[in-house]
Amino acid sequence: MSRALLTGLQLIGNNFSGEGDRLFRAFDPVQQQWLPQEFREATTGEIDTALTMAAKAFVTYKKTTPEQRAAFLHAIADDIVSLGDELINVASAESGLPLPRLQGERDRTTGQLRLFANTIKEGSWVNARINTGTPDVRQMQIPLGVIGIFGASNFPLAFSVAGGDTAAALAAGCPVVFKAHPAHPHTSYLVATAIRKAVMRTQMPEGVFSMVHGTSHETGQYLTAHPLVSAIAFTGSFKGGKALYDTATRRAVPIPVYAEMGSVNPVFFLPGILREKGSALAMQLLQSVTLGVGQFCTNPGMFITPSEETAAAFISTLQQGIDGVSGGHMLTPGILHAYQQGIDWLQQEGVQVLGAAHPAPEQATPYLLQVTAAKALETPAICQEVFGPASLHIQAGSIEEVYALARRLEGQLTATIHGTEEDLQEHAGLIDILREKAGRIIINGFPTGVAVNHAMVHGGPWPAATPAAGTSVGTAAMYRFCRPVCFQDFPAYLLPPELQDHNPMHIWRLVNGNHEKLRITN
Amino acid sequence: MSRALLTGLQLIGNNFSGEGDRLFRAFDPVQQQWLPQEFREATTGEIDTALTMAAKAFVTYKKTTPEQRAAFLHAIADDIVSLGDELINVASAESGLPLPRLQGERDRTTGQLRLFANTIKEGSWVNARINTGTPDVRQMQIPLGVIGIFGASNFPLAFSVAGGDTAAALAAGCPVVFKAHPAHPHTSYLVATAIRKAVMRTQMPEGVFSMVHGTSHETGQYLTAHPLVSAIAFTGSFKGGKALYDTATRRAVPIPVYAEMGSVNPVFFLPGILREKGSALAMQLLQSVTLGVGQFCTNPGMFITPSEETAAAFISTLQQGIDGVSGGHMLTPGILHAYQQGIDWLQQEGVQVLGAAHPAPEQATPYLLQVTAAKALETPAICQEVFGPASLHIQAGSIEEVYALARRLEGQLTATIHGTEEDLQEHAGLIDILREKAGRIIINGFPTGVAVNHAMVHGGPWPAATPAAGTSVGTAAMYRFCRPVCFQDFPAYLLPPELQDHNPMHIWRLVNGNHEKLRITN
Repeated sequence: MSRALLTGLQLIGNNFSGEGDRLFRAFDPVQQQWLPQEFREATTGEIDTALTMAAKAFVTYKKTTPEQRAAFLHAIADDIVSLGDELINVASAESGLPLPRLQGERDRTTGQLRLFANTIKEGSWVNARINTGTPDVRQMQIPLGVIGIFGASNFPLAFSVAGGDTAAALAAGCPVVFKAHPAHPHTSYLVATAIRKAVMRTQMPEGVFSMVHGTSHETGQYLTAHPLVSAIAFTGSFKGGKALYDTATRRAVPIPVYAEMGSVNPVFFLPGILREKGSALAMQLLQSVTLGVGQFCTNPGMFITPSEETAAAFISTLQQGIDGVSGGHMLTPGILHAYQQGIDWLQQEGVQVLGAAHPAPEQATPYLLQVTAAKALETPAICQEVFGPASLHIQAGSIEEVYALARRLEGQLTATIHGTEEDLQEHAGLIDILREKAGRIIINGFPTGVAVNHAMVHGGPWPAATPAAGTSVGTAAMYRFCRPVCFQDFPAYLLPPELQDHNPMHIWRLVNGNHEKLRITN
Repeated sequence: MSRALLTGLQLIGNNFSGEGDRLFRAFDPVQQQWLPQEFREATTGEIDTALTMAAKAFVTYKKTTPEQRAAFLHAIADDIVSLGDELINVASAESGLPLPRLQGERDRTTGQLRLFANTIKEGSWVNARINTGTPDVRQMQIPLGVIGIFGASNFPLAFSVAGGDTAAALAAGCPVVFKAHPAHPHTSYLVATAIRKAVMRTQMPEGVFSMVHGTSHETGQYLTAHPLVSAIAFTGSFKGGKALYDTATRRAVPIPVYAEMGSVNPVFFLPGILREKGSALAMQLLQSVTLGVGQFCTNPGMFITPSEETAAAFISTLQQGIDGVSGGHMLTPGILHAYQQGIDWLQQEGVQVLGAAHPAPEQATPYLLQVTAAKALETPAICQEVFGPASLHIQAGSIEEVYALARRLEGQLTATIHGTEEDLQEHAGLIDILREKAGRIIINGFPTGVAVNHAMVHGGPWPAATPAAGTSVGTAAMYRFCRPVCFQDFPAYLLPPELQDHNPMHIWRLVNGNHEKLRITN
């Protein structure tokens, strides 16, 4: 089969497959044209085959050593790097994202693969808990099974085919059937070839990774409803995540859906800091709002100031600043359209335009909008996410109104507070309220960046994510794809190494209540 | 208000309340008579009040120090002990369980309260994860909010008002609104008074614990659908758990339901051990099946042997043994009725009676039943739980049939394998299959006992429990009532002690990837 033909197909196990006859193409938002390559949507038969192979692969993949899985993850990272400029160029054409951003995203993608590799190699992450005595019980996290993962549109590398969810699932010992995002099918194809190559050269069981294409909701629903899937990971819109959640919870055997559904990421400015450096903060906020054409789940879609008087200079700088901001091409025409609709709707609801940029045609217009706190409290719908380079200023009339707004917030990925030390000490109560609303609380920063490490939380209460207890970024993301199992009175030769007396992996364990790395002696 | 009147009421915060006019009474299954005390079902208004007080209490309770919460848990344990014989006598009258069993259960109840107290006092359970640098991000588990908990019928102390779920939720920092099981309302009342006393003498915020009565599903549904509840914990039937799950997942803001819905707990006997000590194992199995009139979630409701020939002596001992077993009073007439119906239904489905005991009138009859593996594979419904002192022998014709049965099992709380060393080494593949089916795997033991410690898992894949990743017994049960929050770039004075540089609680933390108890120096 020629290269061009392969590109348009599903990767089912280690084979390329194109049984269906529904074709689609990606759109180049910068050139404003459909890209030539045709892609073939997966048939239900292809999804069945991918899942059957994944379930079979699970039997051996779950028994691979952490070293083997780590080598696999490093190989994926290496093979992504080997794709070279082609990957970056293709991703840029399909997403409209600039090359430097995509180069950075590739680093992040390979970096997180390597971070997971090193974490499982160290081994303590399995949370081994041992109580010797009668009975002798030993618990650790084991992989859940086959995971269905949906690629996000806005991170064609870092939250797509070999992105955070895939890295976490493969690290934990779970095979992955990946539903590629239809906005970047060629990018997805290239990354899938890298994973395929890594599967083969590290001798992982065939079926440990498959990728299917699909533009319709049906593909995703079929995957989510399938009896061979044990969990779903999703990053995208509330509507999309909610639809999968409803399907998964209504199955004969319900499964968890780990959905990151975005949020408005409120930023609170306290009076002291506004007086002290309102103008500087305005420029930083503007940068955060418009970074990457506002296409981040953690984009600050709303900011709150405590009074017109304290906010005056800050707002004036914002208004001047927005005028000089450049626009940008959004990821897809659909996303641009939804953004424009969202802005129109806000204006119909009486939201005022503070300022707007003047972008080139077909680009998104960065907006600053404004509404009073009284109006926002009355019409909570205006506080929902409009995905794109806009932010809504909520003008409170008093600090009490700020607290009232905080209390009324829905669940968020992030909540941010700017304040002087005096502000923060005076308003510790506000931080307390926000702690109940978000997965991450930021002091004197901006939420846009999401560091990938052991301590990050990218998640939060409904409707930002489900369940509230989870993260899709950072090494703790692996726990979503595991469950604890207790081995009672097992003879040594049947115990996993992590739980054996002599602790061959030299990991941290909770032994009879003590955290230790020791061998157990009787 | 007189003592007798109080007994029948709800505990709403620290007040006794009886607004409703629907009355009910408990039944003494041994004396076969309704007990005299009348109880008043909660009104929706009372539930609203309890939840409003709980939500208010959460604001201060979540800020209590681990030492304060530990003192509270110890106080509850002390106050339960102070109830003296009255508690044991009342519980026995309401449940039909013998006094020594209830004395043991009280010890377990106070023991688990103290275990949770000591665990939070030690403090490392919050899983502090710190990455210093830019940004500085620090993660820990924080309490989820108000938890609605449903008491189980079969452990009127250890899995009821001050049982495992309540201890875990209160330890984690979550207020509890408890729905008492209608089979033991007076026992529930007494334990609630002990908690109330502990709340007051350790100065916990009023509303941190409330208890409501209800005999109808409506009370439970109302609690589960209530916007002020953040999670539900339930132990009981599949039907009950599923109904709550459906309600919780269809809310405007879905919440997790941690339901332990029972299981059939299969026990596999391998050929070598049957030959070696079949008769001794038969007597042990019989004891496990009939312990506590079979009213354990981990009762072995099914056992599998690999061939008629290897099982002959074992089965013959079982048949002789069952004849001499005494019956027992079940917890409620409803449970007895369901048990008898279950046995009748199995017989209608062609299941054969291997033997039965001859109990006194109104007692449950212990049964040993039998069916071929072929029939069990054909009619999986006969492998479902019949709650009570019965076990179904599945006679396989070959070891291949044993594997086929294992593969077809639904999710289980436990799975057990008996084998010689040779058996176990030969059939490691069977253990592998069972690991995917259960929360706890037992070698050469019986599942009935559930040790309360750090390493226990009492949970498992659907339909045994939901979600599969959880335990309702042991200290890891606390994680069900928490979520991780990340504090980014927080000044020291705003960080929780667990995350401060100087590590004032001296807990284990993951700092830049290293497990350590050190202070952080820059």
